[in-house]
Amino acid sequence: MSDVKKVVLAYSGGLDTSVIVKWLQETYDCEVVTFTADIGQGEEVAPARAKAEALGVKEIYIEDLREEFARDYVYPMFRANTIYEGEYLLGTSIARPLIAKRLIEIANQTGADAISHGATGKGNDQVRFELGAYALKPGVKVIAPWREWDLNSREKLMAYCQQHDIPVDFTSQKKKSPYSMDANLLHISYEGGNLEDPWTEAEEDMWRWSVSPEAAPDTPTYVELTYERGDIVAIDGVPMRPHEVISKLNQLGGDNGIGRLDIVENRYVGMKSRGCYETPGGTIMLRAHRAIESLTLDREEAHLKDQLMPKYAEVIYNGYWWSPERRALQAAIDETQKNVSGVVRMKLYKGNATVAGRKSDASLFDESIATFEDDAGAYDQKDAEGFIKLNALRLRIAAGKGRQQD
Amino acid sequence: MSDVKKVVLAYSGGLDTSVIVKWLQETYDCEVVTFTADIGQGEEVAPARAKAEALGVKEIYIEDLREEFARDYVYPMFRANTIYEGEYLLGTSIARPLIAKRLIEIANQTGADAISHGATGKGNDQVRFELGAYALKPGVKVIAPWREWDLNSREKLMAYCQQHDIPVDFTSQKKKSPYSMDANLLHISYEGGNLEDPWTEAEEDMWRWSVSPEAAPDTPTYVELTYERGDIVAIDGVPMRPHEVISKLNQLGGDNGIGRLDIVENRYVGMKSRGCYETPGGTIMLRAHRAIESLTLDREEAHLKDQLMPKYAEVIYNGYWWSPERRALQAAIDETQKNVSGVVRMKLYKGNATVAGRKSDASLFDESIATFEDDAGAYDQKDAEGFIKLNALRLRIAAGKGRQQD
Amino acid sequence: MSDVKKVVLAYSGGLDTSVIVKWLQETYDCEVVTFTADIGQGEEVAPARAKAEALGVKEIYIEDLREEFARDYVYPMFRANTIYEGEYLLGTSIARPLIAKRLIEIANQTGADAISHGATGKGNDQVRFELGAYALKPGVKVIAPWREWDLNSREKLMAYCQQHDIPVDFTSQKKKSPYSMDANLLHISYEGGNLEDPWTEAEEDMWRWSVSPEAAPDTPTYVELTYERGDIVAIDGVPMRPHEVISKLNQLGGDNGIGRLDIVENRYVGMKSRGCYETPGGTIMLRAHRAIESLTLDREEAHLKDQLMPKYAEVIYNGYWWSPERRALQAAIDETQKNVSGVVRMKLYKGNATVAGRKSDASLFDESIATFEDDAGAYDQKDAEGFIKLNALRLRIAAGKGRQQD
Amino acid sequence: MSDVKKVVLAYSGGLDTSVIVKWLQETYDCEVVTFTADIGQGEEVAPARAKAEALGVKEIYIEDLREEFARDYVYPMFRANTIYEGEYLLGTSIARPLIAKRLIEIANQTGADAISHGATGKGNDQVRFELGAYALKPGVKVIAPWREWDLNSREKLMAYCQQHDIPVDFTSQKKKSPYSMDANLLHISYEGGNLEDPWTEAEEDMWRWSVSPEAAPDTPTYVELTYERGDIVAIDGVPMRPHEVISKLNQLGGDNGIGRLDIVENRYVGMKSRGCYETPGGTIMLRAHRAIESLTLDREEAHLKDQLMPKYAEVIYNGYWWSPERRALQAAIDETQKNVSGVVRMKLYKGNATVAGRKSDASLFDESIATFEDDAGAYDQKDAEGFIKLNALRLRIAAGKGRQQD
Repeated sequence: MSDVKKVVLAYSGGLDTSVIVKWLQETYDCEVVTFTADIGQGEEVAPARAKAEALGVKEIYIEDLREEFARDYVYPMFRANTIYEGEYLLGTSIARPLIAKRLIEIANQTGADAISHGATGKGNDQVRFELGAYALKPGVKVIAPWREWDLNSREKLMAYCQQHDIPVDFTSQKKKSPYSMDANLLHISYEGGNLEDPWTEAEEDMWRWSVSPEAAPDTPTYVELTYERGDIVAIDGVPMRPHEVISKLNQLGGDNGIGRLDIVENRYVGMKSRGCYETPGGTIMLRAHRAIESLTLDREEAHLKDQLMPKYAEVIYNGYWWSPERRALQAAIDETQKNVSGVVRMKLYKGNATVAGRKSDASLFDESIATFEDDAGAYDQKDAEGFIKLNALRLRIAAGKGRQQD
Repeated sequence: MSDVKKVVLAYSGGLDTSVIVKWLQETYDCEVVTFTADIGQGEEVAPARAKAEALGVKEIYIEDLREEFARDYVYPMFRANTIYEGEYLLGTSIARPLIAKRLIEIANQTGADAISHGATGKGNDQVRFELGAYALKPGVKVIAPWREWDLNSREKLMAYCQQHDIPVDFTSQKKKSPYSMDANLLHISYEGGNLEDPWTEAEEDMWRWSVSPEAAPDTPTYVELTYERGDIVAIDGVPMRPHEVISKLNQLGGDNGIGRLDIVENRYVGMKSRGCYETPGGTIMLRAHRAIESLTLDREEAHLKDQLMPKYAEVIYNGYWWSPERRALQAAIDETQKNVSGVVRMKLYKGNATVAGRKSDASLFDESIATFEDDAGAYDQKDAEGFIKLNALRLRIAAGKGRQQD
Repeated sequence: MSDVKKVVLAYSGGLDTSVIVKWLQETYDCEVVTFTADIGQGEEVAPARAKAEALGVKEIYIEDLREEFARDYVYPMFRANTIYEGEYLLGTSIARPLIAKRLIEIANQTGADAISHGATGKGNDQVRFELGAYALKPGVKVIAPWREWDLNSREKLMAYCQQHDIPVDFTSQKKKSPYSMDANLLHISYEGGNLEDPWTEAEEDMWRWSVSPEAAPDTPTYVELTYERGDIVAIDGVPMRPHEVISKLNQLGGDNGIGRLDIVENRYVGMKSRGCYETPGGTIMLRAHRAIESLTLDREEAHLKDQLMPKYAEVIYNGYWWSPERRALQAAIDETQKNVSGVVRMKLYKGNATVAGRKSDASLFDESIATFEDDAGAYDQKDAEGFIKLNALRLRIAAGKGRQQD
Repeated sequence: MSDVKKVVLAYSGGLDTSVIVKWLQETYDCEVVTFTADIGQGEEVAPARAKAEALGVKEIYIEDLREEFARDYVYPMFRANTIYEGEYLLGTSIARPLIAKRLIEIANQTGADAISHGATGKGNDQVRFELGAYALKPGVKVIAPWREWDLNSREKLMAYCQQHDIPVDFTSQKKKSPYSMDANLLHISYEGGNLEDPWTEAEEDMWRWSVSPEAAPDTPTYVELTYERGDIVAIDGVPMRPHEVISKLNQLGGDNGIGRLDIVENRYVGMKSRGCYETPGGTIMLRAHRAIESLTLDREEAHLKDQLMPKYAEVIYNGYWWSPERRALQAAIDETQKNVSGVVRMKLYKGNATVAGRKSDASLFDESIATFEDDAGAYDQKDAEGFIKLNALRLRIAAGKGRQQD
């Protein structure tokens, strides 16, 4: 294990990754570089500096990546109306490629030959970090302590801290949630604890970002979202940058009890797991994006997108953001978004994010043709006969030749 | 036009189809057979008999098809988690194949050489009726009066009634909705009127089956749905037949403000149209079915279903229920449902249909593997390294050879 | 019919389209503009001028479109390894969008309000011409004489010529093939005659571009094709433009008995038809392109392409080149071709086009990993255990819970 | 390693698996059961008994699985026109699930707790064996010696034999091919040796089952294949069982130089490898099956099959025969084959397998409609106008609103 000289660690400043710093130093006799990012998780990242310094770390990277995360990862993903297994908005999945990219870039800058992370050996995140790392720096060494060490309980971790004088703030740790949580600008996730029984309903006090529908205001909130080329660029007419858009929608959604999700999902490593997610802004964005597309996308490109989406979602969920297949799918998706511009009016009310209206200068909705009133010849109903006759021809020939008919 | 001797008409008893009876008799000098079905639209079908008799019809078919509709059409469709264009539950589309089938069967029984319907030349329903008819009886003549006549306004229809002594109940007609509506066991649809502007929100008094979320009870309703092989067979432990299930869920959903939808959709004939739909029971069923599948389906069959679904939805929306491609897709879908059995607990509250729990004897959720606690060796975390390494191999080779990495 | 003032006709100079010129002039009392293109069909286009003049045409367009056809239509299509229904290389389909585009451009230049073509009402070509025309000029009037007139036999056409003094070269017409043929740079097609019985083998003297495998040389020909970004740019080291490449490969393939195809295909209008095709160059190109991709494409982008291809082929076959769905698919396809560069060595022998070698500076083939010999640690075989274990996990859980196992 | 009591080994009787017998006995101190199957590889399996006995094996299974292999694996796969990466007929892939199944069945019969095989850690076969084994017996222990031992060269293997008195026939081994080969009823494969350079053409003397096209007869051979429900049931009118069909077509194909393939493929474990394959019968079967389908399949079910096929091929290639996704795909495929009956006439000549005719009582080819001659009203060409107009409507609306047109 002596072949690692310097390792860049994705460092949160919490108990687990603090132990990892020390464990890496001891086990690999190597230098550790810490990397701590603000991707909108809602916690201060600045304290990570002092903690890392206390652990003897000399190269400390602390960065605000919220804008990059929103603009280059979340926004492209929402252009595809991406949902995994019919429900999940991929809030965790979409944050990993950016972390992987920065870990590798910092490794290149600091001359590190390895990276490390605090994800367990049972989950998807290890896969996402490592696939990204290998794709961006094929010779990198990846150290996944949870797959190597035997500190597989909270008690052992605490004991390790005491043995190694790791200055963890035990007081705050005591109030720790019973859930395994992960948060970023797009969502917060909960796993473990009593969620491990899929029949048990999540407890109300688990949720952090949203009030319950029951506790939400009794009057609805309306909001107008302005789209340009598939992306939201303004809320209620006020131009905003991508991460500001998501933050604002998180606040509006959370206030109105929107975005809670409770599912059993299939992990890439082969097991089912039960997770709860809060994605207030994302939930609004998904529905609004479909609404603006409903006016501005051609039918066949819309259907093509729907057919590609499950694959695209799987690619992201499984950790293949940095892959040629993701790029090819993205090229098709982005090609369709050129005219996805306009305004969607959303009604937010006690858990519901409902489309109240949509309009666009690029609309393909043609009222003069669609109308139930006199259309002044815009559409010749007699065309429908030939349309149906030829679409039916193959069925008629088959039936005429005695094929099964029902 | 004298080559038609007898025509079977899908007859509702309303103004339009009453005019069609007379118009067919006059224009084609043929006998008209009426067919009126209860598919759960919520209106009495018995009065259609007297109306048809008054129009001189001798062969009158009035049937209760609710059970067949629920069992053989709605249920199979829900096995696929079918949604058209990300939103629409296909409530109208799924009723047409059954009507087409009965029209043809009655034509065969009565020796009729033609069928007729009251759908317009702009919509999808003409296509669905006629594709079904041609697939089941390739030589049948189809008469679509709306594509032929010039009675293209309500005034002209009324005038025609007066000229031909058609005993329409004008009083009731005066209170007619400004919307074009269609209802069956699964849903009610609204089009036209002020909905023709996609920016305008639907008016509260348009909706018929559901209260608004605002008007729904302040306390949630919980309901348990029992699944067997992909289909709901009991509610709160009480065994029910398919159409009873849907009726019950319509009532529960409607009471809790669930199932309203307002979309712009792409019709098969090539135009966009704005429609509003109420599908209270279907909305609950879709989410519950996904929940029971989340426990009982293998990951890859679930993903395969997700990739097939948009095509399956398109096939049904476009009217190809009676087609070999629908049968092939159904064979794949049904193959996956063998173990989709268990119970889903749903919370219904002010527009939200939320999964509160799911359990199954056929569950593939393995708590001993998924747990965050000690798994006693059920899963060897070290396996993940090889899994990731080989999944990354193609990406590492590419990166090692200098391929684009971001 | 008097609302058409000027019509642009796709004019071959042959009997049918000469009759159409006169028929349009008479029936619509309008001016006719003729458009004749060299798209590599192998016949002189210059004589079309005198023929058109003799028919009183004042605006005559004669153009060499071979380069544009090869570069902007054939080449992009071959990047996708496009085959319709497992066999057909879309030689006819791919030529129609260009003709449609030029018809519309000439209509715009000459102020014409209509276009016309000589395709029948039973085939795909009418659809391809007209979908293209409508997509590019939505208000254009399309005149399809074969759907309107009653000149539905060769005798009636000849009689029409005599009545209207159309100077057709009857002598040459007498030697006319019994087949309906269509040729361009990519292929020549044959339909009708004794091909209408799918059990009957095509006669040897039908084929025009290739010798039979039996008659081909007894020694193979080897040829090296150089690819850049998915396109052939040189043959045996000699740089060539796209249409030169195709011409050269047609000659090489034809000389070696390559590229004959005899199929029953499904037309977009709903019937099956039997067609024979000669595509000597295209047959070589398809196989060679797959070979260069086999070295240079990542596995998952290759598989994505394979999954998209049938849809892409259908889009082109059905006439939707000028559509947003084709553009979206093309964007994905082209994205994958950035590194599809290198050289393929083909062996041509008596009907066989076989890959004899492939090499590329962008190759992803890694001999040091793939070798059966000692790989010096490039690949750790122990990784395979974890890879298999986790890929098997879902299957093991299911089997462990008693699921069907065979 | 002492926890294994008895292991069932896939035993060929050759050097490698003979070493494995001894190595298992020594390393695991366990009993070894050998399983040797005739799946059409063309070598005697009977001698495996004496060899196994000489190694001290007490439970020896030797079986003729040719019929089961052909009927339950090869035939179902050919119903889907299955090709991996556009070229490969999956000859190796399709044999593995049957071997895996028998290994597990024998393990169950003999009370063995483990299975073993001689596949390397770099290839696909280990994955296919082991996924099958785990799917059928989730708790089974799998021993893959090539991933464990250090006998990674021929020399070390030979030395091991001498040290352990393994009675290998060294004389015959000296004439061993430089290629790694694998054969069964469907094909023979070649890898390694000078094939490791993709630019090098395979040497003529490598091929075992076919003459070269150059050496094949100068006159073609015609053969008629009778299909019932997608499967060949007779050749030239003589009823045959599946494995007899494949044997006969191998002989006919091989005699005529048919079925050689030279490709670079993407392995599931992440690397590219170069392989050559001889599949004489399969090559004929693929083309013939497409031909009978071209007459008897509806267009849309044919296109659905084409879209599913790449996924189905990938599932088989990657080793997931015993999976729910394969079963779901198979259900769809088999549903389409009900009417795939009739006769195909093939011409075999110097490497070419060409369709010379196809006929079927279940044909959907309708000559009366398809004809270029007068169709007596079977098809109304005027229907095409409406068909095109409505299919163009979405494109016209878009163009009318100024959307991109080229």
